[in-house]
Amino acid sequence: MSNQKLFNVAVVGITGAVGQQIIRLLSERNFPIDRLKLLASKRSAGTKIAFKGKEITVEEATPESFDGIDIAFFSAGGDISKLLVPHAVASGAVCIDNTSAYRMDPETPLVVPEVNIEKINENKGIIANPNCSTIQLVATLKPLYDRYGISRIIVSTYQAVSGAGARAIDELLSQSRDVLDEKQVQPEILPVSSLPVKHQIAFNAIPQIDKFLDNGFTNEEMKMILETKKIMGDETLQVTATCVRIPVVYGHSESVYVELKEDFDIDEVKSLLANAPGIVLQDNPNEQLYPLASEAAGKLETFVGRVRRDLSNPKALNMWIVSDNLLKGAAWNAVQIAEYIALEQ
Amino acid sequence: MSNQKLFNVAVVGITGAVGQQIIRLLSERNFPIDRLKLLASKRSAGTKIAFKGKEITVEEATPESFDGIDIAFFSAGGDISKLLVPHAVASGAVCIDNTSAYRMDPETPLVVPEVNIEKINENKGIIANPNCSTIQLVATLKPLYDRYGISRIIVSTYQAVSGAGARAIDELLSQSRDVLDEKQVQPEILPVSSLPVKHQIAFNAIPQIDKFLDNGFTNEEMKMILETKKIMGDETLQVTATCVRIPVVYGHSESVYVELKEDFDIDEVKSLLANAPGIVLQDNPNEQLYPLASEAAGKLETFVGRVRRDLSNPKALNMWIVSDNLLKGAAWNAVQIAEYIALEQ
Repeated sequence: MSNQKLFNVAVVGITGAVGQQIIRLLSERNFPIDRLKLLASKRSAGTKIAFKGKEITVEEATPESFDGIDIAFFSAGGDISKLLVPHAVASGAVCIDNTSAYRMDPETPLVVPEVNIEKINENKGIIANPNCSTIQLVATLKPLYDRYGISRIIVSTYQAVSGAGARAIDELLSQSRDVLDEKQVQPEILPVSSLPVKHQIAFNAIPQIDKFLDNGFTNEEMKMILETKKIMGDETLQVTATCVRIPVVYGHSESVYVELKEDFDIDEVKSLLANAPGIVLQDNPNEQLYPLASEAAGKLETFVGRVRRDLSNPKALNMWIVSDNLLKGAAWNAVQIAEYIALEQ
Repeated sequence: MSNQKLFNVAVVGITGAVGQQIIRLLSERNFPIDRLKLLASKRSAGTKIAFKGKEITVEEATPESFDGIDIAFFSAGGDISKLLVPHAVASGAVCIDNTSAYRMDPETPLVVPEVNIEKINENKGIIANPNCSTIQLVATLKPLYDRYGISRIIVSTYQAVSGAGARAIDELLSQSRDVLDEKQVQPEILPVSSLPVKHQIAFNAIPQIDKFLDNGFTNEEMKMILETKKIMGDETLQVTATCVRIPVVYGHSESVYVELKEDFDIDEVKSLLANAPGIVLQDNPNEQLYPLASEAAGKLETFVGRVRRDLSNPKALNMWIVSDNLLKGAAWNAVQIAEYIALEQ
């Protein structure tokens, strides 16, 4: 990347898990940065954060924070994005928004680089980063969509608590210890911190992520359904999702049933997956090899295995998809988008 | 149950979790027992076990153990059942076998009382108790099958480690503590104790229960597929299963997609489930009420919630089914069968 244009980059929400991963990836990937601005709430302003051997002082994120900024990452919640993204856009920045604020906005491209990177050119200042569970699903299914067409997806998720933030991680770990010590458990965060009823997550499975809608689905499930159609650019795609929180810290797993539009050869399917960008095929039943959250944690790729022909529908197959929800599911997908922006300029 | 016939009952495999639950249920349900014989391997013979205030000495299970026995419960593994059940049958006992040894035998009824209790009359000395994951699925779906017909079931499971035995429970608990204490983890039991490769279960999700078959499905998945068809008495039923072990001690959860043969009213579906024997409808999104493994543990019923119309297929619906895998999934279903046998004599 020598002689390359350098960018003024802002990261909003640097105290959150995703913000921290974005900073780490910008450093590790050697992103061509001229000036890096780290933005957070007033409470965190003044904190110093190390970046490539230098200390950067965190500043309060305000509408005026974006003067001269080329690329701004947002992962401080939907409300902050709705408040500040318009100002960043007005200042001339391209905003990569990790919240759900603009994902379904028809003017805003919703991008997973392995699926629809060309959409970044249609941006009007905002590129939305999809929901974590959606990203690993569409990244894996894209080569099958292109080769055979997909008519229907039925997915059940096994989601890590880190998707609900640092306090949810703390809750799982301390609650697990309490259960092991046979102490009374007092849930305080999960399933949804802003809702009144809390449930134990340690040694349990909670079939609720985000709030319920009138149709009986949760917001998280509707995100998977609607975002998958938007990213694939196919409103005829039938998608059903059940989203479940399980006692895992990092790494979302997904049990996926897929109906293709054409007959397929299962070896060709595996070969397409093995050769797809960003996808690692881990599939050898004889060696008990399949993706595991414990092994996907900390990695950038999406892992797929248990790929097998359905026994009752000859055009269907089943698989198990795992990825680190904070990396490909959030920070890495956002930094990938930034890398493509940088390459094009 | 006064003036009722009393039965000579044998329980084979009384050191296992299921055997212990069978003994507890026989006591709590006041099963009409004349003589109770507790049988185990030679190693455990001589142990004394309390039953209704009396001490019973455990005897070694041998082909001669079943003289005069009316009802024999087997839960000591498939090999023991294959070895001893024929002798028990020859002695005139009705055997309720909790292993997979006879489940798919065409001569042996495979019984879930809420679904096909009439089949017990066809027994030739053996009645098979289905796989835990299958029981809660068919018990819940039976009222919908009767009312609308079912063409297709796609199920992903979230299974507790107690299904893999006491050593798997110990492994989850001690491994969880090791992870919390940041110690190295050394998996020794799961996913399948007799296979060479072991995986961490603490804070993880393992998409393997039992061994793999050549078609890429596991034995556990094939049990769900084949047993569901046999119990429902419908070989045209299309079933797909993905079975996953998660860090839960007691209680299997299932994410289930069901295609009905007829249009349905969602309130009628809920009403059918609420009124079905052995089923408890826990379904109120506004109050964040849905089944949880932590609450189903120790209970005899099967719990169902998250019941909602599918958004892409008007004849399909989705639901979340939870039950204690050692109780309705094993010991309670077996004792229920025995209660029906007792009632008929």
